[in-house]
Amino acid sequence: MDKLNIIKIGGNIIDDEIKLSSFLQSFAAIDGKKILVHGGGKLATRMAEAMGIKQQMVDGRRITDAETLKIVTMVYAGFINKNIVAQLQSSSCNAIGISGADGNAILAHKRISAFDYGFAGDIDEVNDSFIHSLLQTNDAVVIAPITHNGKGQLLNTNADTIAQELAKAMSKLYDVDLIYSFEKAGVLLDVNDEATVINKINSESYQQLKRNGKIFAGMIPKLDNAFTALNSGVNKVVIGKAEDLTKLIDGTKGTTIYNG
Amino acid sequence: MDKLNIIKIGGNIIDDEIKLSSFLQSFAAIDGKKILVHGGGKLATRMAEAMGIKQQMVDGRRITDAETLKIVTMVYAGFINKNIVAQLQSSSCNAIGISGADGNAILAHKRISAFDYGFAGDIDEVNDSFIHSLLQTNDAVVIAPITHNGKGQLLNTNADTIAQELAKAMSKLYDVDLIYSFEKAGVLLDVNDEATVINKINSESYQQLKRNGKIFAGMIPKLDNAFTALNSGVNKVVIGKAEDLTKLIDGTKGTTIYNG
Repeated sequence: MDKLNIIKIGGNIIDDEIKLSSFLQSFAAIDGKKILVHGGGKLATRMAEAMGIKQQMVDGRRITDAETLKIVTMVYAGFINKNIVAQLQSSSCNAIGISGADGNAILAHKRISAFDYGFAGDIDEVNDSFIHSLLQTNDAVVIAPITHNGKGQLLNTNADTIAQELAKAMSKLYDVDLIYSFEKAGVLLDVNDEATVINKINSESYQQLKRNGKIFAGMIPKLDNAFTALNSGVNKVVIGKAEDLTKLIDGTKGTTIYNG
Repeated sequence: MDKLNIIKIGGNIIDDEIKLSSFLQSFAAIDGKKILVHGGGKLATRMAEAMGIKQQMVDGRRITDAETLKIVTMVYAGFINKNIVAQLQSSSCNAIGISGADGNAILAHKRISAFDYGFAGDIDEVNDSFIHSLLQTNDAVVIAPITHNGKGQLLNTNADTIAQELAKAMSKLYDVDLIYSFEKAGVLLDVNDEATVINKINSESYQQLKRNGKIFAGMIPKLDNAFTALNSGVNKVVIGKAEDLTKLIDGTKGTTIYNG
């Protein structure tokens, strides 16, 4: 199977023009096919403020009312997605930018919960054969975190979850590495010391680290998700700093989570 | 060669939710492959007003400064494009929405002119083989009037011109009909009477109509462009009301301009 790198880029890099440009140059230089899943950064919040639309947050999650959906669709699928694509084109990386509505790439439903998150989407299905067809004619696919329900409704969807579900679905067709690049250096033994990155974790060492209370509680869901991805056919999951993208891919920086 | 309908939809339909929805149902029902090129409507202007960004217009053309480019990228390539795609998906029309940057679909350069139009793009090249590849796996391609210069710069580009250049380029691969759908019923003998639509015009009858002063001056550039398209391989050009889309395609309404 061909190699496919699926890379999630966090919001704080999106907000930093210089860091983003340098990240995109590293991304463009990756050998073989690749997918970039981007979050939104603070631009949507700034836009909403400029337009006098109040943003409600619950447990760090944005509540997507109709006006907020309009803004995130504009900012994520329009401004950020197209600027990333144009920059990749200038680095000789032929990219196509899509939302989950395009080609019915990602089908979702409005979140069902006791609490109303508004137009928030939970993923039902990733259209692996469509994304495969885009990767035949393009070097990269850039995915904005907007999905649809197949009935004409766009939905705001968590970019981490999109990356995870994509990685699982594409594993049928490719040898997939899933890379979460953000502002942290990786999984740390000491949460206050970036020099204590754990370079490799497998399920055995993960159990041991948990038993010894060495894993920061906030990291546990991320690691559990990583093992779920591995158990669904993903080759490896890497967590680390966006600035180190090339070294995350070759395994010399960040934390690589693997089966074995 | 396979049939391909390339349809430009005007801004005033985009602004009208009910008319747009009905138009998209007719569009979805068209047999065979199709491309929809959309303009922006008034939402970009309203957004700019809400954000306190002044819009400068010269001769009815928007001057695209950096802030305006940001807004039109968000509104055209984000909000409008993705909502059209989601609606087409709900009508069982598998559509993909792109800008000219995606897959290097439309390469342009910043307009060179004595007057500075800002980030306005004039088209250099349409990537016919890429658009052909999208039409292999999708029923429809929806194109936002944003292009790029290959060096990382997005450019605001006239949607009529995009439709025209697309039609010319795609004629190498398809039997192309080009349909301009807007608020007028077609080319009128009497500009104040919608009942006087001229149903068919060829180059001979066009010359005669011009000699007799029967063509409204504002229509002449549109008709000249139509004949240029015909001379570049386009099968026919139709001008008429968006509400009549199905009848524009079968030639029973609007004005059909043809060679012969």
